[in-house]
Amino acid sequence: MSSKDIPDVNQSRMRISLCDLGQRGYDIETGSGNLDRIGLFLSRFKPCSRVILLTDANVRALGYCTIVERSLSGAGFDVCVESIAAGEPSKSIETAVKLWSKLLAAGIDRKSILVSLGGGVVGDLGGFIAATYARGIRFFQAPTTLLAQVDSSVGGKVGIDLPAAKNMVGCFYQPLGVLIDTDVLNTLPEVEYACGLGEVAKYAVSLDAELFGILETNADKVRSRNSELLKFIVTKCCRIKGRIVGEDEFETTGKRVLLNYGHTFAHAFEIISNFKLPHGKAVAIGSIYAAKLAKRIEMVDNDFVERQIKFHKTIGLPVELPDELLNTINWNNIIEIMRHDKKTEAGNLKFVLPTKIGQCKLVNNIDPKNIIPE
Amino acid sequence: MSSKDIPDVNQSRMRISLCDLGQRGYDIETGSGNLDRIGLFLSRFKPCSRVILLTDANVRALGYCTIVERSLSGAGFDVCVESIAAGEPSKSIETAVKLWSKLLAAGIDRKSILVSLGGGVVGDLGGFIAATYARGIRFFQAPTTLLAQVDSSVGGKVGIDLPAAKNMVGCFYQPLGVLIDTDVLNTLPEVEYACGLGEVAKYAVSLDAELFGILETNADKVRSRNSELLKFIVTKCCRIKGRIVGEDEFETTGKRVLLNYGHTFAHAFEIISNFKLPHGKAVAIGSIYAAKLAKRIEMVDNDFVERQIKFHKTIGLPVELPDELLNTINWNNIIEIMRHDKKTEAGNLKFVLPTKIGQCKLVNNIDPKNIIPE
Repeated sequence: MSSKDIPDVNQSRMRISLCDLGQRGYDIETGSGNLDRIGLFLSRFKPCSRVILLTDANVRALGYCTIVERSLSGAGFDVCVESIAAGEPSKSIETAVKLWSKLLAAGIDRKSILVSLGGGVVGDLGGFIAATYARGIRFFQAPTTLLAQVDSSVGGKVGIDLPAAKNMVGCFYQPLGVLIDTDVLNTLPEVEYACGLGEVAKYAVSLDAELFGILETNADKVRSRNSELLKFIVTKCCRIKGRIVGEDEFETTGKRVLLNYGHTFAHAFEIISNFKLPHGKAVAIGSIYAAKLAKRIEMVDNDFVERQIKFHKTIGLPVELPDELLNTINWNNIIEIMRHDKKTEAGNLKFVLPTKIGQCKLVNNIDPKNIIPE
Repeated sequence: MSSKDIPDVNQSRMRISLCDLGQRGYDIETGSGNLDRIGLFLSRFKPCSRVILLTDANVRALGYCTIVERSLSGAGFDVCVESIAAGEPSKSIETAVKLWSKLLAAGIDRKSILVSLGGGVVGDLGGFIAATYARGIRFFQAPTTLLAQVDSSVGGKVGIDLPAAKNMVGCFYQPLGVLIDTDVLNTLPEVEYACGLGEVAKYAVSLDAELFGILETNADKVRSRNSELLKFIVTKCCRIKGRIVGEDEFETTGKRVLLNYGHTFAHAFEIISNFKLPHGKAVAIGSIYAAKLAKRIEMVDNDFVERQIKFHKTIGLPVELPDELLNTINWNNIIEIMRHDKKTEAGNLKFVLPTKIGQCKLVNNIDPKNIIPE
């Protein structure tokens, strides 16, 4: 590893400070072998009557749940494990109802802590349960996918899906803390890794030129999941997101929306694929479409678009929709979906668009004809 | 009306200031004929894409929904009405799921406002929907029962019931404001009026000697629902609750628990009655049991208990359980239920007990033998 390329982070602890309240905020700790240390990490939050450890079948099968359970028990916590089926269908009202009832039966009270050990589904669902059970119990995140580590575990967005709309029911509910063990990324399936990289590329292209430069220079290490590089990437992305969330916790000042480069396209692509296209890949493809839109309205030049396309290709990210979607896409339908996006107001088509590598801004009232590719 | 007895409040506006955030807080407006003015009152919260007016069949049948709808439309709001069945069974997951889906179908977005027009069920359910739809939309309370006006509409506790436990799923979610029209109390059924009075008596006995004195002196006007007295009562109770909630929004500092005089007994009585005993009446009876417990541990003398019993009787409140419950009560069972109360921690039996008229404190580790009446 060339240390001049990848800053050494080793074990890192950073703090999210939420702007509206001096005392609020929480620590995000990233590093190797952290799962083993979760008991120690959580000890600062004692007294705690009981820990509910929420995980999914995949994480359990990999043995990570056992490590966490042992670490917590070893630190004197009374732990009970709840496991859900892996995958998006678990982020449902039905699973929430089951979990609320199980927590009640297990005697969980306001001195308890719910720990989510898993990817975005376990994190979002667990956070929603913690936010709403007994009007809120304490919540802790131990994300195990790259996407959850760099994005969904940080910032307090929790929730479940309605049959007709993803993430439609939820809260802003911040965790006590986030403990990230980058070692677990070694066992992540290729498609999950690519999904996480989709969000990483988003941070790099739209928000952080330094991150972009390091990834561009070390594309081989990105693909080989180099341990030092992953620690740097995760720490850097958490820091970027933490800063923005700290300035705009409830998505009201216009800061937080800047995290959405590529997302307006991505949401529409996910919907027309019936959610067969995973979120992270949709973001990767969507940000290429957003870059081309930015070029069309002369915010960036063609070199920018080409550089981003090359960047995606070298780190293993898609730049175009799968053929079966591309061949059947109806752009009027896409624009209609965009008009009904959760963040759309009164049909105003808004996009986060790049101005140069590492910088972006929100652009309002985009003419639909500029959204449609030539 | 003797003005030396009942302070004149006429139209009153007070502000709840939430302690943790200087800028947060909201107005509670009380007075006659306020339903007609709701459009004007809400205009300060424009722009608003749409108003969801949530109400129940009873409120609708009394014509109040039409008044509110007209006032809102007249002020330029785009209103859609959602009506639920009256009564506690509507505070369910099933109703919540239906409402979330209806809001989505109606195109409700974060610039919308949900208005709850009704009693505690409509307020608690509507608040929970507002707190969780699209991670939170704006929420406004227009309470129409005495209990909702003096208690449940103020303070941000919202939620639904689980089959096995009332109010087990919910959030702390403060409204934009509360608009109270005391005229609607004229059409309130006798049992609902008594339930509200149960909470009013609680404020008087445990938190406000002035309120106690005025109610004691004007017991006939309490029973006849004297309009001036009701305006005073509602305003006074909101002021008391607002002050306490402002100091302890999330029930963490021990202040807010002082609103629970009589409630530990009341919750247990409600459970053994299978919720046939209404909450407000249970609170009235429970606070007499609490007074007797306070006497047993020598916090108050017998005169205190007798004065409270007489007070309840003159304003038309119960002082003892209905015969069918009294004859079958199992006190070991009651104590077991109390140990599982949401506010109980590690089985510590805690009670809010009076020290004199208008004052109370939280007492920990009560010996079960003192809970059981002689």
